[in-house]
Amino acid sequence: MSHRTFDDVIVGETIDCGTNAVTRAEITSFAGEYDPLAIHVDAEAATASPFGGLIASGIHTFGLTQPPVVDHFYGDSDLIAAGRMEELWFPAPVRPGDTLHVTLEIEDKRVSETNDERGVVTARRTATVDDELVLSLRNHTIWRR
Amino acid sequence: MSHRTFDDVIVGETIDCGTNAVTRAEITSFAGEYDPLAIHVDAEAATASPFGGLIASGIHTFGLTQPPVVDHFYGDSDLIAAGRMEELWFPAPVRPGDTLHVTLEIEDKRVSETNDERGVVTARRTATVDDELVLSLRNHTIWRR
Repeated sequence: MSHRTFDDVIVGETIDCGTNAVTRAEITSFAGEYDPLAIHVDAEAATASPFGGLIASGIHTFGLTQPPVVDHFYGDSDLIAAGRMEELWFPAPVRPGDTLHVTLEIEDKRVSETNDERGVVTARRTATVDDELVLSLRNHTIWRR
Repeated sequence: MSHRTFDDVIVGETIDCGTNAVTRAEITSFAGEYDPLAIHVDAEAATASPFGGLIASGIHTFGLTQPPVVDHFYGDSDLIAAGRMEELWFPAPVRPGDTLHVTLEIEDKRVSETNDERGVVTARRTATVDDELVLSLRNHTIWRR
């Protein structure tokens, strides 16, 4: 699509951001650097855990949802920065070979209370694997007006 | 330290988790894979932005705080999984060469309302660079009892 301004943001719009898949090697490599808990890096310990096998770090799951929303919404836009995030939640684990399907719903937009040259967009991001919710995020982003 | 059980978790305790540093190459490499916004990958565009130069992805900043808290608190423990996260916020940017100082404060613990074999620990994580707050997170984690 073309460049998206704050005025172009439509409250109530739902944007299908497509998919992103993850491999076992990506899960253990990411976690080795950024979340070295046994459940993410140690296959034997993970198999003995309540999850029954390796699962992706929540931080990795979050990262897997970002390229799809950059591609479909934030990438070529007047976005300036992230604001506060709320309710970041991982209701089910992401496992090796899973494909995440990412959706963004625009819940609200408003002029910033502290700077009327800035706008605030509130969005809910969800990611599913085989229709099961694996990530839910409600966040605010700061835009140029 | 030795293995940490749910009973070992002390409400009100503040844990100094030490530091983690980030390079320019790490910022652009992470963002190329997980957050390909211009402000994180394109030095020229970033210089022209309100931030005046490359900044780390918020997801990367979150990831940089995780090894210190795994090393000092969650790593060898009866942690089972992440619960809901609240108020994940990046009040100031992380830039190439910055060193994050990470602190964890235990705000609450309680028996799970849905499964009395599980405990819930609520913590606030903060990261600072030169005493400026760059990350604030309030989250819940699920523990074996």
